[in-house]
Order: sequence, then structure tokens, then C-alpha cells
Amino acid sequence: MTTQTTAPADAAAPGHHHDYVHGYSQAEAQRLGDQADTLAELLHAGTAYPAGSRVLEAGCGVGAQTVHLLAASPGVRLTAADLSAQSLAQARARVAAQAPAADVTWHHGDLHRLPFPDGSFDHVFLCFVLEHLPDPTAGLAALRRVLRPGGTITVIEGDHGSAFFHPESPAARRTVDHLVRLQARAGGDGLLGRRLHPLLTAAGFARVSVRPRTVFADDARPALVEGFTRRTFVAMVESVRAEALAAGLTTPEAFDRGVAELRRAAEPGGTFHYTFFKAAAVRP
Amino acid sequence: MTTQTTAPADAAAPGHHHDYVHGYSQAEAQRLGDQADTLAELLHAGTAYPAGSRVLEAGCGVGAQTVHLLAASPGVRLTAADLSAQSLAQARARVAAQAPAADVTWHHGDLHRLPFPDGSFDHVFLCFVLEHLPDPTAGLAALRRVLRPGGTITVIEGDHGSAFFHPESPAARRTVDHLVRLQARAGGDGLLGRRLHPLLTAAGFARVSVRPRTVFADDARPALVEGFTRRTFVAMVESVRAEALAAGLTTPEAFDRGVAELRRAAEPGGTFHYTFFKAAAVRP
Repeated sequence: MTTQTTAPADAAAPGHHHDYVHGYSQAEAQRLGDQADTLAELLHAGTAYPAGSRVLEAGCGVGAQTVHLLAASPGVRLTAADLSAQSLAQARARVAAQAPAADVTWHHGDLHRLPFPDGSFDHVFLCFVLEHLPDPTAGLAALRRVLRPGGTITVIEGDHGSAFFHPESPAARRTVDHLVRLQARAGGDGLLGRRLHPLLTAAGFARVSVRPRTVFADDARPALVEGFTRRTFVAMVESVRAEALAAGLTTPEAFDRGVAELRRAAEPGGTFHYTFFKAAAVRP
Repeated sequence: MTTQTTAPADAAAPGHHHDYVHGYSQAEAQRLGDQADTLAELLHAGTAYPAGSRVLEAGCGVGAQTVHLLAASPGVRLTAADLSAQSLAQARARVAAQAPAADVTWHHGDLHRLPFPDGSFDHVFLCFVLEHLPDPTAGLAALRRVLRPGGTITVIEGDHGSAFFHPESPAARRTVDHLVRLQARAGGDGLLGRRLHPLLTAAGFARVSVRPRTVFADDARPALVEGFTRRTFVAMVESVRAEALAAGLTTPEAFDRGVAELRRAAEPGGTFHYTFFKAAAVRP
């Protein structure tokens, strides 16, 4: 496994830096791992790069998706980039444990200012990254630069507006909305998934194709209820409790009631729906 | 084509009768036809009954789904039932035009009190029916009675809570919500799709399996933008204008602004998402 870490001078510079709304805790890393494992087939199906391809994963975070990308595309030459040195270290450890033979170059830096020449990559992959950027079109345009003409970009994003559940609950709905508001305050967009076609088009990509990848969990799918409804979505909502209270969006009682009612979607007779969006496009 | 019409004494009796929230106009029949044709593959894929099967379509309406059911299952012996004699006449004309060789018995009556012996059918099919019933579990239980042990039921429903779009618009969202409120006032549930698993379970069915069937329309799918976003969903929202105003839910200005903003989802750069749910289950 190649593990050079490139760290350009401006890696830690401010500017495009943004707060990661879910924080950087150990529990959050665990949540991201659970989420990635439960959803790996749903999200990664259809993405397999030929051996030898030069692939960039922009915003690899703790490597939750990186290991699945490498499993689906053995033999690629991957460059995995992230703004957080701490996340990058976790990603490196995860890949070392799960894909020790993989050819990975780790890059600590900002995806808006990658130090690679134009057209350096055959494929770019990013998952749950655009939702955190103040200007996702600018981010995509910067990635287009390092992609060779004819190369592809693959983008996966969620959309919290797609979350609905049974039993219906206004309190739970308000609590989910706090997540969207907090992400907006941090400069991101929790409703980004639905916008992938116009965003990729605006950033100069061609042959843009976006398909929903839907999670629907009910009593017939107990593993999904546990792995997604409870341990991914409810856990994500719970993770912003302190932040929502600090921002004055809600009271402890109202927040906890919303989470308790949301949790009923993961109990017998409950159901939960969420849509991820997966886009593919080509650099003309 | 067999076209006996059975019309039991209680067919026009009140009791389970309910107002059809979208009305019975010619424009509505056209809308239902457009919707069914655009969505036929999405909704009917996977449903094909063997020739000779005794199939009941409960709540066939104007026959919008009936013709697709017959196309996917040539040779079935279909009984198509509806509460509205007017709709049934339209269904009969539609089937005569599009599936003249089909073996169809038309039944004017209430699905809660079908005059058929227990276990009369091998398969039951219903599409966009439960959302209008005051007690969908009772309706399903009544249909279970006429299904033979081991026979299957197939249920397709929408869920207006699944509608989201770009550009996001609170005014458009409120206008969609009027549809849900009007349906609730009429005794129905515009958010029923997500509840199919618990409903079928409560009605005594086994091996319940529910899958989302998602429509996502963006600039890459102009036919879907036209056939679904504009001519199905926006048209459905527009169709309740007079009723929403009469109910005092909104003003003409607010309603029209909501529809205008919703319509932007069908313009270049717009996107629209909607989830149908399709359930299959077995009578134990």
C-alpha cells in the first residue's frame, strides 16, 4: 500500500474551511462506519473503475466510503483527499486494516485548491461532501479541472427532505428540520441531493445522470431498521442535540420528544423512508 | 370480452361511501389516463398473473390501471369493481377500446361488501384505492375474505409526503399540504403509502413485502417532467383549487403562487421526487 501523504502549504489555510456539522467525535466515526456498511451495496452498486485507473476521492473523511470504493475497484490508483488531518489519519488506519494491498496516496488539503495538474485523474468520486460546501458548484468546477476530458465524476448525496416515517409526528419532523437548519448555518445544504443535476450542469459537466437510491425500512427488514433507521438516521439527529440547543432552535424537552417520536419509526409497525441521490457525469 | 355487470342491491347504499377528493370530471379522467400511461412500467412491473387466474381489481375507477393490468396478464379472468357507476362505464369503454379480447366482469358495488363467496379469487389488485377509505384495514380485511388461502394481494399507493422538489419553496409545499388536508377531511389519507406494511399485517395478511417505486424527474428525463411532474402531480394539485378555497384553507393568491412555484420544478434546472409504494402479501 502506497501511503505517501502530500500536504501542500495551504492545506490548513482558512477560506474554504467549514465546520463539519456532525462534529469529529469517536461516536460520529462509529456512526459513519455503521452507515457506510449498511448502505454500501445501495450506494456503491454500479461504480467499478478499471484496474490502473487514476481515481480521486475528494473528501474521504474517516474512510467510511473509501474501503467500499477499493473493494469494488481492486487495482485502482487512488488518491484520497480530506481537509481534516484527524479524519485522514482514521481513514488511513481503516484502509490499512481492511484493504492493506490497496494503492492509496493520502492528500491533506482543500478540494478547491488541489495541487494536481489539469486532467490528473480518470475518475473522481465524492460521497456526502457537497452538502457541506458553501458553494458546491465551485467545488465541482475545481474537481472538473483535475479530471481528464472524457473522465467521469460520481457524486452521492443525501437529502433530509426525503425523510418521512410512520407514525407521522410533527415533533419528530421539527427535530429533523433542526438538522437542515444547522447545516444551513454552517454554510451547507442538507437538501442538496435533489439538486445534483442542476449543480453538475452548472459546473460544466456533460451527460449528467442522477438516480435516486432509496432506503425503505419496515418490519420486513429488521437489519435495515437497526442499521439505518436507528443507528444511522436517528443517531445523526441525536448527534446535533447540543448544537441545536446552543443555537436556540429548541428546548431539551422538545428535542428529546422529537427524537423519541422519531424512534417509533424503528419500532414494530413503524416505517422509515430516505432517498440518497447518485449522479454520474462526464468532463467534456 | 365478457361484460356482464353485476349490481347488487346495496351498490348505491351509503355507509362506506366516501367523496372522491379529486372529483369525477372529464379533465380528471384525462389526468388519470396520463398518469397511468406514464407510470405503467414503474407501477406494474413485476405483476403478471397466469392465464386463467381469477383476478379481482377492487376500485378500478375509470380503468386507467385496468388496461395495464390486462396488458401484463393476458388470459386472466378479471372482475373489476367500483363504487361509481359513472367511472365503471368509462372503464368499460376504455377496456373495450384497448383490450377488446379481455375477459372482464364488471361489478358495481362497494369493496367492503362484495357479494362473492369466500375464496373466490386467486389474486386481488388495487391501486390508489386505500388512500380514499376511512378504514383501510377494514377494506383490506373484506378483500382478504374473497381471496383464496395462498392467494396474493397487490396494493399500490402514493404518499404525498414523499413529494419534494427543486427549487425548494415553502409556498409550493403549503399548497401540496392542502391536498393532504382535503383528503383527510374526506376521510382518506394522502400519506398512506408508507403505512402499507402495518396495514396489511393488521388486516391478517402474511409475507408482506413493500417496496418503494420512485419517480425522479430532472432535465435528463423530459418525458417524465411533462408526463409526471407537470401533467400528473401539478395537475392533481391544481385540481383541488376550488375545494381548497371553499374549505377556507387558502386564498386564491396564495394557492396560485404555490402552484406557480411548484411548476418551477418542471422548468429547466428543476427537479421533482415522488415515491409510490407497491406491496404484495399472501392470504394465509
